[in-house]
Amino acid sequence: MTAPITQVEFRVRYAETDRMGVVYHGNYLVWCEIGRTEHMRQFGVPYREMEERGVALAVAEASIRFQKAARYDDVIRVETTLADVSSRTVTFDYAILNADSNDRLATARTTLVCLDPGNRVTTIPAEFRPMLRRAAGLAE
Amino acid sequence: MTAPITQVEFRVRYAETDRMGVVYHGNYLVWCEIGRTEHMRQFGVPYREMEERGVALAVAEASIRFQKAARYDDVIRVETTLADVSSRTVTFDYAILNADSNDRLATARTTLVCLDPGNRVTTIPAEFRPMLRRAAGLAE
Amino acid sequence: MTAPITQVEFRVRYAETDRMGVVYHGNYLVWCEIGRTEHMRQFGVPYREMEERGVALAVAEASIRFQKAARYDDVIRVETTLADVSSRTVTFDYAILNADSNDRLATARTTLVCLDPGNRVTTIPAEFRPMLRRAAGLAE
Amino acid sequence: MTAPITQVEFRVRYAETDRMGVVYHGNYLVWCEIGRTEHMRQFGVPYREMEERGVALAVAEASIRFQKAARYDDVIRVETTLADVSSRTVTFDYAILNADSNDRLATARTTLVCLDPGNRVTTIPAEFRPMLRRAAGLAE
Repeated sequence: MTAPITQVEFRVRYAETDRMGVVYHGNYLVWCEIGRTEHMRQFGVPYREMEERGVALAVAEASIRFQKAARYDDVIRVETTLADVSSRTVTFDYAILNADSNDRLATARTTLVCLDPGNRVTTIPAEFRPMLRRAAGLAE
Repeated sequence: MTAPITQVEFRVRYAETDRMGVVYHGNYLVWCEIGRTEHMRQFGVPYREMEERGVALAVAEASIRFQKAARYDDVIRVETTLADVSSRTVTFDYAILNADSNDRLATARTTLVCLDPGNRVTTIPAEFRPMLRRAAGLAE
Repeated sequence: MTAPITQVEFRVRYAETDRMGVVYHGNYLVWCEIGRTEHMRQFGVPYREMEERGVALAVAEASIRFQKAARYDDVIRVETTLADVSSRTVTFDYAILNADSNDRLATARTTLVCLDPGNRVTTIPAEFRPMLRRAAGLAE
Repeated sequence: MTAPITQVEFRVRYAETDRMGVVYHGNYLVWCEIGRTEHMRQFGVPYREMEERGVALAVAEASIRFQKAARYDDVIRVETTLADVSSRTVTFDYAILNADSNDRLATARTTLVCLDPGNRVTTIPAEFRPMLRRAAGLAE
C-alpha cells in the first residue's frame, strides 16, 4: 500500500518575504505545519481535537532542502505524506511546489513525538493509531 | 510626577525584513511588546510572574505611526512609558528609534486589558497596582 | 456610491498562536495585508504588478481594536473596503471575523503612502487611479 | 586548529511562543540566523556588507533536532561555529541553550550557498575567503 498524499494551496504573504526578495526560509516550517494539519484532518484526526483530548505532537526533528525560491503572491502547493508511524512518533514528508509552474521549491521531513499534558513523551492514544496507520499506508 | 522611561536595544533580524528591503510593519508590534516587557520588569512586575499568578494582559487596542524605515542589522531602541493605569486597563506609549542616528522610526500606543484565567475582563490584582501606578508616575 | 467589500478566508496557523492560547495580536496586521492584496486584485490592480512598475505602497499608519480572540484552526474571514484615496495615499478598512460564528474579532484601518523606487513619497501613477477610485466607490 | 565559537544571548519574545506554551519550532531557524550574523561580524565579515557588495548567502539546507522546550522570557544562548567552507558554500553548526540552566535546547546545522545578484550560484568572492577560512579553523 502506498501512503496517500494530501494537497493544500495558499498564496505567499508579503510578510513572509525578506529583503532578498524571496520567502524567508524559516517560513517553510510553517507551511509544512499547514500541510500536516490538512493531512490529519483528511484522515479523520483533526489535530486540534487531538490536543483537546490531552495529547500534543511536538516537532522533534526537522530537515529541509531548499531548491527554488518562492516569491510574494505565488500560489504554493504543499503535498504531505505520513512516512512512518511508531508507538510514540509520526514522520511526515513534504514536497513544496509552485502551483502554477509545478516547480519543486523544497523537500522537507519532520518527526513529531507524542507528549502528555505534562510534556512527557507518551504513546499515541489507541483511538488515533488506526487512522494514522491508514494515513501512512500501513496495515491497521 | 513624570512617568519614567525604560529603554531596550536590539538588532533587526533578517527574518523581520520584507521584499521592500525594510522591516515589515507588523513586527513593530512585537518590538512594542519587548519594550513593555522590560518596562514592567524594571518596575518589579515581571509579566511572566503576572501570568503565573493567573492574570493576563491582552492587547485591546493598538495604533502605530510609521515615520522612517528600519533596515537589517540596524540597532533599534524602544523607549516605553506607562501612559495610564485604570482598574482594568494599562496603556503604554512607545517611541521606536534607530539607536545610532537617534532618528524616530515609529510612534505607538497600546491599551491592554486584564483577563482572568477564563479570559474574562477583570480588575488588576491589588498586589500589582502600586507598582503600576508608580511606573505611570501616578500617586500610589 | 458605496465602496465595495472583498472577502477572503483562511485558517489560523499554529504558528500564529501564542502561549495565551489565542492568535498573537501582531498577526492581525498580516491578515489585513491579505485582505487588501485580494481587494486590489479584485479591482484589477494586483499589488505585485504595482511594485513591478516601480511604485510601492508602504503602511504609514495602522490602528486595530481587538474584540474577540481567534484560535488555532478557526476559519477567519477578512472583509476589506477602500475607505479613501488621495493623490498620494490610500486608506483601507478591515473587519476580521470568525467565518463560522460571524463574530467580529477585530476592526482595523491602515493608511498607505505611495513611494518611488528611492523610497520617496510620490503621487499614485495615473494608470492606477481610476481603478482605485472605483474600488473606493468614488466617481472616477 | 579548532573552529572558534561565537556566543550571542537574547530573551524569548512572547510572539515566539505558541499555544503549547513553548517557543514555536520554526523560530529556531531565526535564532540560527542571529547566531551566524554575530559569528560573521566577529570575523570581520558583516553579512550586511557582503550583500552590499553584491553577494548573498541563501540557506540551501537546514536540519534541527529539538531537545528541550524554550519558554517566554527565558534567556537563550546561541553558540555558532563555521563547520565548513567550500568555494561556493558555507556550513554553520549551532547549539541553542538556556543561558541560565545551560540545558541544551536544540542542535542545528545550515548550509548556505553563495548567490550573485541574479540569484545564480557563484563562488564566494576572494576578499571574504581568508576570513571565512579562519573562522572555520582552516589554514588560509
